[in-house]
Amino acid sequence: MEQKALELIEHTLDEVLPRLSSRPAVLAEAMRYAVGSGGKRIRPLICLGAAVAAGGRMEDAAYPAAAIELLHNYTLVHDDLPSMDNDVERRGRPTVWKKFGEANAILAGDALEALAFGVAARSPRNSGRIVSALARAGVGVVAGQVEDIEKTGDVDFIYTHKTADLFVAAAEMGALAAGGDEVSVSALSSFALNLGLAFQYQDDLLDGDSPYDRSKTETLAKNATDAAIAALSGLSGDTKPLKVLATRLLGRKI
Amino acid sequence: MEQKALELIEHTLDEVLPRLSSRPAVLAEAMRYAVGSGGKRIRPLICLGAAVAAGGRMEDAAYPAAAIELLHNYTLVHDDLPSMDNDVERRGRPTVWKKFGEANAILAGDALEALAFGVAARSPRNSGRIVSALARAGVGVVAGQVEDIEKTGDVDFIYTHKTADLFVAAAEMGALAAGGDEVSVSALSSFALNLGLAFQYQDDLLDGDSPYDRSKTETLAKNATDAAIAALSGLSGDTKPLKVLATRLLGRKI
Repeated sequence: MEQKALELIEHTLDEVLPRLSSRPAVLAEAMRYAVGSGGKRIRPLICLGAAVAAGGRMEDAAYPAAAIELLHNYTLVHDDLPSMDNDVERRGRPTVWKKFGEANAILAGDALEALAFGVAARSPRNSGRIVSALARAGVGVVAGQVEDIEKTGDVDFIYTHKTADLFVAAAEMGALAAGGDEVSVSALSSFALNLGLAFQYQDDLLDGDSPYDRSKTETLAKNATDAAIAALSGLSGDTKPLKVLATRLLGRKI
Repeated sequence: MEQKALELIEHTLDEVLPRLSSRPAVLAEAMRYAVGSGGKRIRPLICLGAAVAAGGRMEDAAYPAAAIELLHNYTLVHDDLPSMDNDVERRGRPTVWKKFGEANAILAGDALEALAFGVAARSPRNSGRIVSALARAGVGVVAGQVEDIEKTGDVDFIYTHKTADLFVAAAEMGALAAGGDEVSVSALSSFALNLGLAFQYQDDLLDGDSPYDRSKTETLAKNATDAAIAALSGLSGDTKPLKVLATRLLGRKI
């Protein structure tokens, strides 16, 4: 289903982002540039996969899936700023602040964040709980980033919040959008927390900057992936898309 | 009712903001510092006044009122940044970036924005529509700010979005939280749009930087205030608190 899912994600993002003809044009342009196209879209794929795993259709979760990607991309825009990571390139292109200026990058990020919540609220089912899940992740991801900048060295806290919180919100929103029961929401939340941690350990291995030695990090990544997949047992819907995604992420080379 | 309303606003803000004992402490501290206490709280007063004018109780709109103040304060934190207005003082104290550093100010603003939506979603009635109204304002206020920075000189666009959008969302959210009908929501939206414009004209007079001459700006402020008050006729609830607020804002000296 992944190709169809990616098409749904790109289509929905294009639908909800401001037209380039809207005012001010530079804001619409910067917002669309930030979200890009053809990215990996891991978080929205988790959201759609969770909807299917909870017994619904992936179309049920189209808006929450777009919302989590908008939120994720705003965090990247702000992380790249000169006063944060001071990055000039991302995905082989100039970062938003490098291309549009620092003020416009801050503002485009701010607008993407607001838009994310507006899009999440458009879910036909459980919109209140979906927005709450997204807001928890929105505060959590900032807490993780502040902790990272402060260099407290609490890896668990940073990984859980900076990375896994958005994975968790994606899964919970997908399950809620599909009308999943509490047991499904909780199981998918657990799947996503473990997948988020696995993703971060794997990222450390690829970047060669793990706080642990290589063999320990590999074990942590493997165990977290196993725990993620185990959490899927007992769900009423089709869990194959999420299993494929989890397995692919563990083996990813970029 | 204004004293009681202000107490409800401060109480709700204190309830929803992260405790100083939460992690990371610097984030909670910066968020609370940004929101401050004892401010004028104009937007939440509009929200509570709209709930009463729509026939409900002001307690119905406590969460939306807190949400609009959180959103407003995040915009101030980001507007003050060095790459934006580069302000070092606000309300007689160092600005957030001056006190906590630029990265923490960006992040505290980001977290306040996410929190605003989470708090709005807690409204017992119409939470989906309330979040949508807040998100429209959240994108609109950024559009107004970008247009202002770009110096296009379109005063109507800038005032409508940079200032009035938050007033409009405050009123709509209050009416929706009180279970007001479509006619009430629309009337209160019109009230707030006009009040927002009046507020901005009045601001220009106080700052001495109006794009028009003094006499024209005074007429614009007076007419917008009259239009705001006229929009309140026909509402089923008590419109006195909003009338008092509108009259007081036109006469404000700070």
